[in-house]
Amino acid sequence: MAACSLESGKTMSYFTHYRDHVGARPDKFHKATLCEGQFLMLGLNCLEPGQAHAVHTHADQDKVYIVMDGVGWFTVADERQEAAAGAVIWAPAGVPHGVENRGSERLNVLVGMGPAPKKKG
Amino acid sequence: MAACSLESGKTMSYFTHYRDHVGARPDKFHKATLCEGQFLMLGLNCLEPGQAHAVHTHADQDKVYIVMDGVGWFTVADERQEAAAGAVIWAPAGVPHGVENRGSERLNVLVGMGPAPKKKG
Repeated sequence: MAACSLESGKTMSYFTHYRDHVGARPDKFHKATLCEGQFLMLGLNCLEPGQAHAVHTHADQDKVYIVMDGVGWFTVADERQEAAAGAVIWAPAGVPHGVENRGSERLNVLVGMGPAPKKKG
Repeated sequence: MAACSLESGKTMSYFTHYRDHVGARPDKFHKATLCEGQFLMLGLNCLEPGQAHAVHTHADQDKVYIVMDGVGWFTVADERQEAAAGAVIWAPAGVPHGVENRGSERLNVLVGMGPAPKKKG
């Protein structure tokens, strides 16, 4: 039985480690999907210094960020906070949120979304 | 606007840290809800050495574990693995899963569930 089907069409094990999904892109922050089901998705976003995910809103999805490495400058609604490893940032459905890496190290942040984003195409 | 309503009836900030929710119980593992919305819940389970969450199944919820401290002995379907900090364990809807702390340190593991468990009572 496939543990999980990813956008790539690959399946994943029930067990993984977030560090195995870290990456970097020069043009835009790196995203990886660690697991994805009918109700829930866990991804990893990696932001190099200076990269950002602009403030946006999901009408029908709750999101939670968990900072693993680095420091993020998070916005949720009208609150703004720096958050480092172990911080949990909650962006419920309908609430604008975003993150910037204003630091000097890569920011690795796990992102849980329920339900999983709809596939494109 | 309330960021999040918890089972306790309290609201939470959009920002928290998992360490602020760590706890221990002698009789059963400690559980805390960090954030909870219509679609998603993030909790923290703290298992003292010898404590376990017996294998069980959620028919209509996906679950993901993220190990923060300690070592867990996880079961998902017929796979069993030890997992330490940074490990991600995926238990999609319908797949039996559980965790034991066979180590000598407290196991702190974040638990994401989509959708959030139904309130009792």
